[in-house]
Amino acid sequence: MRFRSLRFATISISPARPKTLLHLRRFLSSSIAARIPPPMAASEESLRQALAEKQSAVDAQAHAVRALKARPGGAAQAEIDAAVEALKALKVDAGAAARRLQAALSNNGDGAAASSREAFRQAVVNTLERRLFYIPSFKIYRGVAGLYDYGPPGCAVKSNVLAFWRQHFVLEENMLEVDCPCVTPEVVLKASGHVEKFTDLMVKDEKTGTCYRADHLLKDFCKEKLEKDLTLSPEKAAELKHVIMVLDDLSAEELGAKLKEYGITAPDTKNPLSDLYPFNLMFQTSIGPSGLSPGYMRPETAQGIFVNFKDLYYYNGNKLPFAAAQIGQAFRNEISPRQGLLRVREFTLAEIEHFVDPDDKSHPKFVDVANLEFLMFPREEQLAGKSAKPMILGEAVLKGVVNNETLGYFIGRVFLFLTWLGIDKDRLRFRQHLPNEMAHYAADCWDAEIECSYGWIECVGIADRSAYDLRAHSEKSGVPLVAHEKFPEPREVEKLVIVPSKKELGLAFKGSQKMVVEALEAMSEKEALEMKATLESKGEMDFHVCTLGKTVSIMKKMVSISMDKKKEHQRVFTPSVIEPSFGIGRIIYCLFEHSFYTRQSKAEDEQLNVFSFPPLVAPIKCTVFPLIKTQKFDDVAKIIAKSLTAAGISHIIDITGTSIGKRYARTDEIGVPFAITVDSTTSVTIRERDSKQQIRVSIDEVASVVKEVTDGQSTWGDVMWRYPTHSAAHTEEE
Amino acid sequence: MRFRSLRFATISISPARPKTLLHLRRFLSSSIAARIPPPMAASEESLRQALAEKQSAVDAQAHAVRALKARPGGAAQAEIDAAVEALKALKVDAGAAARRLQAALSNNGDGAAASSREAFRQAVVNTLERRLFYIPSFKIYRGVAGLYDYGPPGCAVKSNVLAFWRQHFVLEENMLEVDCPCVTPEVVLKASGHVEKFTDLMVKDEKTGTCYRADHLLKDFCKEKLEKDLTLSPEKAAELKHVIMVLDDLSAEELGAKLKEYGITAPDTKNPLSDLYPFNLMFQTSIGPSGLSPGYMRPETAQGIFVNFKDLYYYNGNKLPFAAAQIGQAFRNEISPRQGLLRVREFTLAEIEHFVDPDDKSHPKFVDVANLEFLMFPREEQLAGKSAKPMILGEAVLKGVVNNETLGYFIGRVFLFLTWLGIDKDRLRFRQHLPNEMAHYAADCWDAEIECSYGWIECVGIADRSAYDLRAHSEKSGVPLVAHEKFPEPREVEKLVIVPSKKELGLAFKGSQKMVVEALEAMSEKEALEMKATLESKGEMDFHVCTLGKTVSIMKKMVSISMDKKKEHQRVFTPSVIEPSFGIGRIIYCLFEHSFYTRQSKAEDEQLNVFSFPPLVAPIKCTVFPLIKTQKFDDVAKIIAKSLTAAGISHIIDITGTSIGKRYARTDEIGVPFAITVDSTTSVTIRERDSKQQIRVSIDEVASVVKEVTDGQSTWGDVMWRYPTHSAAHTEEE
Repeated sequence: MRFRSLRFATISISPARPKTLLHLRRFLSSSIAARIPPPMAASEESLRQALAEKQSAVDAQAHAVRALKARPGGAAQAEIDAAVEALKALKVDAGAAARRLQAALSNNGDGAAASSREAFRQAVVNTLERRLFYIPSFKIYRGVAGLYDYGPPGCAVKSNVLAFWRQHFVLEENMLEVDCPCVTPEVVLKASGHVEKFTDLMVKDEKTGTCYRADHLLKDFCKEKLEKDLTLSPEKAAELKHVIMVLDDLSAEELGAKLKEYGITAPDTKNPLSDLYPFNLMFQTSIGPSGLSPGYMRPETAQGIFVNFKDLYYYNGNKLPFAAAQIGQAFRNEISPRQGLLRVREFTLAEIEHFVDPDDKSHPKFVDVANLEFLMFPREEQLAGKSAKPMILGEAVLKGVVNNETLGYFIGRVFLFLTWLGIDKDRLRFRQHLPNEMAHYAADCWDAEIECSYGWIECVGIADRSAYDLRAHSEKSGVPLVAHEKFPEPREVEKLVIVPSKKELGLAFKGSQKMVVEALEAMSEKEALEMKATLESKGEMDFHVCTLGKTVSIMKKMVSISMDKKKEHQRVFTPSVIEPSFGIGRIIYCLFEHSFYTRQSKAEDEQLNVFSFPPLVAPIKCTVFPLIKTQKFDDVAKIIAKSLTAAGISHIIDITGTSIGKRYARTDEIGVPFAITVDSTTSVTIRERDSKQQIRVSIDEVASVVKEVTDGQSTWGDVMWRYPTHSAAHTEEE
Repeated sequence: MRFRSLRFATISISPARPKTLLHLRRFLSSSIAARIPPPMAASEESLRQALAEKQSAVDAQAHAVRALKARPGGAAQAEIDAAVEALKALKVDAGAAARRLQAALSNNGDGAAASSREAFRQAVVNTLERRLFYIPSFKIYRGVAGLYDYGPPGCAVKSNVLAFWRQHFVLEENMLEVDCPCVTPEVVLKASGHVEKFTDLMVKDEKTGTCYRADHLLKDFCKEKLEKDLTLSPEKAAELKHVIMVLDDLSAEELGAKLKEYGITAPDTKNPLSDLYPFNLMFQTSIGPSGLSPGYMRPETAQGIFVNFKDLYYYNGNKLPFAAAQIGQAFRNEISPRQGLLRVREFTLAEIEHFVDPDDKSHPKFVDVANLEFLMFPREEQLAGKSAKPMILGEAVLKGVVNNETLGYFIGRVFLFLTWLGIDKDRLRFRQHLPNEMAHYAADCWDAEIECSYGWIECVGIADRSAYDLRAHSEKSGVPLVAHEKFPEPREVEKLVIVPSKKELGLAFKGSQKMVVEALEAMSEKEALEMKATLESKGEMDFHVCTLGKTVSIMKKMVSISMDKKKEHQRVFTPSVIEPSFGIGRIIYCLFEHSFYTRQSKAEDEQLNVFSFPPLVAPIKCTVFPLIKTQKFDDVAKIIAKSLTAAGISHIIDITGTSIGKRYARTDEIGVPFAITVDSTTSVTIRERDSKQQIRVSIDEVASVVKEVTDGQSTWGDVMWRYPTHSAAHTEEE
């Protein structure tokens, strides 16, 4: 499985990447799962060896049998029979060895676990689709790969997650939220590097034109060989495993060469494949009617913030640090989307750009998160082949494992955000990027990865991107995106001053004078000081002028070089940016998997599905069930519904008159935490979804009790103390 | 000014539109302001007439003078002088007449009012841009016409409006909210008609290729002529006014002919213009890498709901009525965006599709809105040249002015939504579509129009679209999007049964038998019953078979026609859809204009800007100002800030130590309703923005008081009774 960052997804397109494409490092990201070499299981290697030996014994014996049969004059029948018997026995042996290898492979490749994960995922996804959490988009037209709708409960969960994100980040930190368009002109995405680099490598079926992602084909080929070809030598198997491991690091040339070497063809037709070429993953369009203004659907929301830096800095009173945030759609025109709900062509991102003085990345509120302890997976542990381990955040920053306090603060806040949503903290880890995964300019990057049936999934990236983005847009637009720090009092600084004498240079170089002047002015401080020394000691110096393509002789009188003292009133600098970037759809999908469980019905005749959403994210907070169909209970239900609406609690009334157990089960399956059953005209029961416990509350109080437990002011445990409880006033059987 | 519906914007592209393109009516919409003929102001007509008369008197006299001068033998100098004097007097007269016309035109074209509206708009827009409610998108790259960012306060207002929309519509009515992608495959938008019809007519500068909207050019030409050409005859002036009035109804041919007739050229270069051609307003793109799957950025969110009807109906327990809703981005690739923030290329729509039995459009909650009274502008009033008038909604439905209760219910709910947001109810009207604005299938349509400096702006469309959309997608997809109504007990219905005798027909028509059979089976009930009668009386009948292209003779024995009785258990029908569609950006812009006012500073030396947002929509609910810079006040401010955060109240602390008056003014300008000034360590003042009144509240209570007034549980008037008040404990001067 190939993982790409939330932000960029590319394979390098140059064979010289490690050196020349260092600045592309950010564009490369992959899961550590695929990067750390799993040692080839000893049993697998020895079994492959054993099978190869048995197979050659079979071949040798078969040869012997043929030789006996072909012996001039003929061998004795007894001798032939014995040889054939021996051959049969060897074949039985080889067959057994093949079966042992096959069994080992399916365990080794985590066969049993994989198929149970697959079954679990199927159960979750079936429930999600049946209850309309998701709907494949445009289903009546047979859909479009990689596009999904959120149906009613999914949409409500998404709203709740986004509302909580706003509360937890924007409101809590006074962030400046902005909302920029998805349609983006080309110039912006040229500056950011997306137009050139946001690509995947593609090959086409030469006859049908069907497109494939080159790395997918290579990986599928290797995996299939490893799983199905029992005659593979241990060396060849090791090679294929190595290819899977380094897949993300292969250059276009290397990837192309491997496809050729293995004779890989189009999977559906077996037709030959075209050469590789890069395919840009942005949806392209045209702004206005002229066809002369290319535009793209934004691949991330961050650029909208960067281009507004100057205004936002002003809005913040020209003070650092501050953070801007944006929630919005982003688009990625995948070549062939896989991984169901995790790899889609349109998705919601929530991004924060925290701008900070590069010389001071401390954070006043770091102390609030310093004592948190959770799974961290630093670079060193990864390279040593170890696994993630619990660390105290404060210590990680103190020891320099995490680069700075601000980065650490956001890691802590992300941890709180995800676990409060309902992500299981034992299946959440913060993994540091390896040196070769990071952009050269990045100071440090950590991904919040959540484990689900697809493996460890990158759901939030938290990167210290230094000054890269603001610099890129400053250069391209010509508008300086910088911050100022006024000195308490002006500072004296030394500055190099180079003053070429135009008169002398004119006399000496005539028409070439301008080029010489420019070359002198362009000298670095070091070069200038060397020239100053040489001119003072020798009176002249050879000087190479690139634009002339030759070396000229500079005399002392031709240039004055000095260090002048100047007063400076402020420091002007490009802020660093620390960027937490949230893939909302991925977080929600993982939350669905972490919240899902099944339990037996009371009659033990079926498995009932439950989503154990915390009230915060539950799509509907509460249901109202009149126990039996009667006007007076319906009237009470309506009164309660009205008070719930007034309290802002989303709810549904179910007056179908189906058994109460069935109604409970139906709403457990969409994760409704509380059910109110109307069984009298004065008081009602409230049932909690996971414990199935019930309390009795008067009709006047019911809305406020439900509000208390859904707003998080009280827990279910708290209210259990205050009201009469029933283990099950209304059983799941009624 | 040309107004188009939120949904569709096109000029018809056929001269025969009224007949053949009736189904396109939905695609046409325009403001009544442009549609109802304003009677040409009597004074203008008479002034034009007077000017023309004076001008011809001048011409005649000039002719006389020339004749005198040229008289053979020469006229007496005295005679010539007298004639010249008379000419001068006539010229003075004509000049005065021209000035009177000019003055009348600038009043008549609402010149003075227009320029004051323009000045007001400039004041609002300047404040909005300076305080970053809006930012032209990609400003550092010189922006893109028709794209705007919401900066921090604008984004907060938008979030608040959307949250209230969810509360007011989705939660209150238990709507099924969905969230579908923006990227949409072509097939969906072919079914909806957008691929073919969602176009504007465009012309190009033949030399430079610059594109213009054809109707804009024609309108600009007519307006300029009317305003600046004083020599225009009254007839010509009337003609140009008529053209402006019927602009939206002109066919492509008529529009092209007018451009030619008036000799209109490219406005920037005066180059000749190309012929007209339709330009599709959808942003086009390509899904996946093959280039074979065209897609578009959706022009509305509604289609995502229609294609999901079947699943949503199932989700709702196969019951009608129910409503689905969606909030999301929509896109429109305008040829040349005008009208600033009102006509943009990307915008947020909030749409509701309420599905209902076409035979029963009553609404159980209509009674809740029936007593509302507000400005309505029914079709009849418009055609009679009258203006909007206050009507009681219940009466409007009772009298049939509004087609049905459900439509009426949504009109009422929209009125409440807009006025609760802060839209001035005196500048809000509900205008009914004229017959020629509506689609032939639509039962009734009303637009909520809000008056702002641009005129009356369509902000919400509320249409009863009957079964059109579901039918279109049923046909295209082959998936029946229908509802079922089970009968309490099976009903006996009569059904026509036509059984052609294949044997007899085979003998008679041999190879053509199949076509005849099909034609017989395809007869309508009326045709079949006629045939039955004729065959019974005459024994044979002539019958035209289209597929054969000829008439054949049908004998009695060749076909049996009867009415059979059948039991039916359910009714199968396509639901009607009632669609309220909200242009969120337009509503917000109008809200800004309605909330904006200026007042003099206390020193009377400057005009201060205020946005009088209700707390519901205010971007920040409250500010905290330590009166003077001191640690103890800063500490109190922090404690208060913490309690505000815990109560979920967005706020900012301003510790700049600027004068309190300046700080009040600064936050009035972004519409913060309440300011807390910390002037002691036990109690603080709370100041209300519009009244500038202050109350004193203890530090423990301050967050709950602010919550009370921002949540709408209490009004400012309520809390004024409970706490000590000051007319101004902290004056705007401090």
